[in-house]
Amino acid sequence: MRFDILTLFPEMCRHVLQESILGRGQACGAFSAAVHDIRDYTDNKHRRVDDYPYGGGMGMVMQIQPVAAALHAVMEGRTERPRVVYLSPKGRVFNQQIAREYAALDGLVLLCGHYEGIDQRIIDRYVDEELSVGDFVLTGGELPALTVVDAVARMLPGVLSADECFEEESIYSGLLEYPQYTRPPVYEDMPVPEVLLSGNHGEIAKWRRKEALRITAERRPDLLKEAELTGKDREFLEQLSAGNAAEEKL
Amino acid sequence: MRFDILTLFPEMCRHVLQESILGRGQACGAFSAAVHDIRDYTDNKHRRVDDYPYGGGMGMVMQIQPVAAALHAVMEGRTERPRVVYLSPKGRVFNQQIAREYAALDGLVLLCGHYEGIDQRIIDRYVDEELSVGDFVLTGGELPALTVVDAVARMLPGVLSADECFEEESIYSGLLEYPQYTRPPVYEDMPVPEVLLSGNHGEIAKWRRKEALRITAERRPDLLKEAELTGKDREFLEQLSAGNAAEEKL
Repeated sequence: MRFDILTLFPEMCRHVLQESILGRGQACGAFSAAVHDIRDYTDNKHRRVDDYPYGGGMGMVMQIQPVAAALHAVMEGRTERPRVVYLSPKGRVFNQQIAREYAALDGLVLLCGHYEGIDQRIIDRYVDEELSVGDFVLTGGELPALTVVDAVARMLPGVLSADECFEEESIYSGLLEYPQYTRPPVYEDMPVPEVLLSGNHGEIAKWRRKEALRITAERRPDLLKEAELTGKDREFLEQLSAGNAAEEKL
Repeated sequence: MRFDILTLFPEMCRHVLQESILGRGQACGAFSAAVHDIRDYTDNKHRRVDDYPYGGGMGMVMQIQPVAAALHAVMEGRTERPRVVYLSPKGRVFNQQIAREYAALDGLVLLCGHYEGIDQRIIDRYVDEELSVGDFVLTGGELPALTVVDAVARMLPGVLSADECFEEESIYSGLLEYPQYTRPPVYEDMPVPEVLLSGNHGEIAKWRRKEALRITAERRPDLLKEAELTGKDREFLEQLSAGNAAEEKL
């Protein structure tokens, strides 16, 4: 899979893409990620990319010409048209389901806006989809674009060291993750839950499932609607909501 | 306001913090942001920060000692205890309301996890709040933490060049933003909507409000419940949903 990020802040994007799992994933050829400076595609000598909004108002709007030229350059010579996504608070809200959908694509172009936004005609003509990472206002689309690359790249074969690694993770399973503990067994006055030291894998699996259910029910009951639940899970959730699960918990 | 980011990837965080509005905001003293390498606080000579999870399973868990030591160092000598936030998919979901809440704080410590997570006892003992940027799995808390710094810093006085700048922006007002246009007036076969070239500020304001309402109703009807709406707004929305607003649109 190939990612292309179109941005006015290429250095920042490149630094993030070099780090950690993203850097390793590119090094081993699991995906490629190119960062394009929109400013390189301006046709004016001042490399200007923005102008005042028609109709007045604060802020500046990114112009069509450099963005269109950058998009044309990124598309050139490709047999399959990549999906063009504009990061914007107006988009559908990114989630793991969308990450999975993107991970099946051949190419993803992530267009990062700045200032008050970009000329609507770029969106109307070139953008397949507007995507938001959440209901908050950011300086630009760079952090959202990098967030998307991270979430999607992690699902590509060869990026994580063991395929199973991501299977258990929260959100993938539709439940929030159970608590994790590592050494030491006692920190100050806080011991690790005894079951985790028992070596009884059946009991550990049961405890973890219940904790995941309990935390999800407490914090994000909305997720339970979409989660895959067994009959036992539903029974436990009913006990919980009936307030009878206090001593079941461990 | 002071931000402290605790991370295993300090360079990546520093690069992002130098860029754009975040860099300028620090340069002019509107806020400060320090990045702390958790690895600097390990008490073992291999600077190891993680260990296997109790109870088995894939991945590694961040240990208490280095994180606790880093937190103690960050807290030291401060008169007011900063809010300690752990970035995690288990947290409450970040939005503009939370950004506003954080912008009123004196200090915010953002703890970034990696691997399978951090030892639950760190959360139980030190963390005031778990915060998620959305329902997707990322490599670590760094991009979420930087997203939070960006969204919060933008609301601090002196960070944006004009106070009004942010007033109009989407999400702040509870509506998605109206479309923006800039030069040229015609691109290929696509003209700018005529009203925006009219110079009639009353009509422009009306058009923009209607577009914002229309886009929000189409894409994020959930936001309308919380938005501040006038009687006229409600009337327009009713027309829209009755399907009568087609020629009202421009």
